[in-house]
Amino acid sequence: MAIDNAYYTQENHGPYEVYDIGALELEEGGRLDRCRLAVATFGTLNANKDNAILVPTWYSGTSKIIEQVYIGKGRALDPDKYFVIVCNQIGSGLSSSPHNSADPANFPRVRIGDDVRAQHRLVTEKLGLSSLALVVGGSMGAQQTYEWAVRYPEMVQRAAPIAGTAKNTEHDFIFTETLNESLTTDPAWNGGNYKASADVAAGLKRQAKLWTVMGWSTQFFKEGRHRALGFADIREFVDTFMTGYFAPMDANDLLCMAWKWQRGDVSRHTGGDLRAALARIRAKTFVMPISHDMFFPPADCQVEWRLIPNAEFRPIQSIDGHLALFGADPAALQQIDQHLGELLARPV
Amino acid sequence: MAIDNAYYTQENHGPYEVYDIGALELEEGGRLDRCRLAVATFGTLNANKDNAILVPTWYSGTSKIIEQVYIGKGRALDPDKYFVIVCNQIGSGLSSSPHNSADPANFPRVRIGDDVRAQHRLVTEKLGLSSLALVVGGSMGAQQTYEWAVRYPEMVQRAAPIAGTAKNTEHDFIFTETLNESLTTDPAWNGGNYKASADVAAGLKRQAKLWTVMGWSTQFFKEGRHRALGFADIREFVDTFMTGYFAPMDANDLLCMAWKWQRGDVSRHTGGDLRAALARIRAKTFVMPISHDMFFPPADCQVEWRLIPNAEFRPIQSIDGHLALFGADPAALQQIDQHLGELLARPV
Repeated sequence: MAIDNAYYTQENHGPYEVYDIGALELEEGGRLDRCRLAVATFGTLNANKDNAILVPTWYSGTSKIIEQVYIGKGRALDPDKYFVIVCNQIGSGLSSSPHNSADPANFPRVRIGDDVRAQHRLVTEKLGLSSLALVVGGSMGAQQTYEWAVRYPEMVQRAAPIAGTAKNTEHDFIFTETLNESLTTDPAWNGGNYKASADVAAGLKRQAKLWTVMGWSTQFFKEGRHRALGFADIREFVDTFMTGYFAPMDANDLLCMAWKWQRGDVSRHTGGDLRAALARIRAKTFVMPISHDMFFPPADCQVEWRLIPNAEFRPIQSIDGHLALFGADPAALQQIDQHLGELLARPV
Repeated sequence: MAIDNAYYTQENHGPYEVYDIGALELEEGGRLDRCRLAVATFGTLNANKDNAILVPTWYSGTSKIIEQVYIGKGRALDPDKYFVIVCNQIGSGLSSSPHNSADPANFPRVRIGDDVRAQHRLVTEKLGLSSLALVVGGSMGAQQTYEWAVRYPEMVQRAAPIAGTAKNTEHDFIFTETLNESLTTDPAWNGGNYKASADVAAGLKRQAKLWTVMGWSTQFFKEGRHRALGFADIREFVDTFMTGYFAPMDANDLLCMAWKWQRGDVSRHTGGDLRAALARIRAKTFVMPISHDMFFPPADCQVEWRLIPNAEFRPIQSIDGHLALFGADPAALQQIDQHLGELLARPV
């Protein structure tokens, strides 16, 4: 029986359309009988069908924040020029997810590759596309972007992984494990068997605190960015903003996404050889880490950049760290727009 | 009734002497009736009594690791030249601490300032000193070093705070809160009422994991330093090394130290004016952050350095991050020795 949750709705995150892409066999051996993808689109597909941009979502995020922060007239992702498809990942709460499934505690394990195969089916079969002008995403969106570029190299013309890696690091795996444990050690989580998402409030609050520590940067707090955003001190920032952000979410959904995040790795295609996997990429690629990111740091992204043919390293300077993705630093958004604009202007 | 613990013993951490410095009134209003300080000394006090070095301990550490990693013939802290006094902080498990007190769950709140007043009584009344050639410590040892230099400026001739701050940051406060919650959310902790330290094994293991994420650095794992240290992968590193390190410790003792750590702040002497507090320092001071420290980052230490008269900024380069303090990176130790040697050679 699905879990009560009032957050993952058209009212809060729409408008979006839900596509049933049919049964999806999963890489870990399970199966989603009817895989549903919640998709928000902006702009119009042109006659040549060569102006489509795909944006997969990040952990805890939905298409709504992509719409609000990244898409707009005069922006790089301009709906007057492009047909922008924002696809909510499996487990996001809008697409097929534990909380909206018949048996939330036993939702099958999903991998980044499953998401990308599902999205491929969406854009080819449902939307009739045979190429994507750009795939761009942040964090887990970057993981999906890399997976797209390696798995379907002939289809992805440009790729912009922002603040994410092609192969997750050991450090990041353990960081994510601490996020997971914030939920699974809450007695109310109860092995995934709870009635309403809000039952796991204590665990979600602890997760919000861990994100406060690692999601921004020490410099962010040192320079008082949290106060500049309107919070009296870090306590209010944690209790109001960060806890407020996570409180309405569903623990099982977050755990589903985190499991994928931990195991994102394009070298699964090449028997563990990351160099060989990244060599498959045909897309013109801008690798875009964020300078103060504490868990997808530029150094980790730089190592991968060197393995991608013809790629450019385009770091974003922001003391907002990983969560510069949230868009609170206008200068970071300006840099991202600048890079994406240049990337989109490149002939392919 | 004291809590069972086989770790905090002379066998594991000795030899050390325990000094009873009498009743200590605490800044938060409580009182330790008989404050005991466990102290290990190395070398001999000279006739002029001007070769004494004080080393306060860090969170979770005792005098033993200071002895093993920092003290030795030919090192900066050379017992042939100096009388080195390593004083275990209150809550360390060797000095007065919750677990060895009559009522562990209700041990009073202690501040860095209480430790430093206790140490002052030790070195003046018990050891007969009127000046210290150097106070040096890492992490919470740095917090105590700053407190010494501000509280007793006439007594501290040189100061070397390593990987720590004079005023704890908001970010660090919340990071430490996540460490505390790893223990307090373990049902076995039970508000501090448990019989044996080992009862809180699950919480201690979670704390070990949080330290794995923040204690070293992303670069440490990226470059495979954990494998170079003999562990197959990060899982073995967490389960064997980091968990093995924390498993024998006492949760209430760690929480006692963490409470101090969170509130370390020399500006308590000057009504919150950090500039005025640091201006009191007479010691020749080397501010020594570690390059890849994720929670006492160089940038935070640099801001304080600028406020200390005649101080020098001497960062240590090490991808071991904060836990370079553990001494696994010989190059970091060499740098620390180099700086301390130069500092000790400075006339005062």
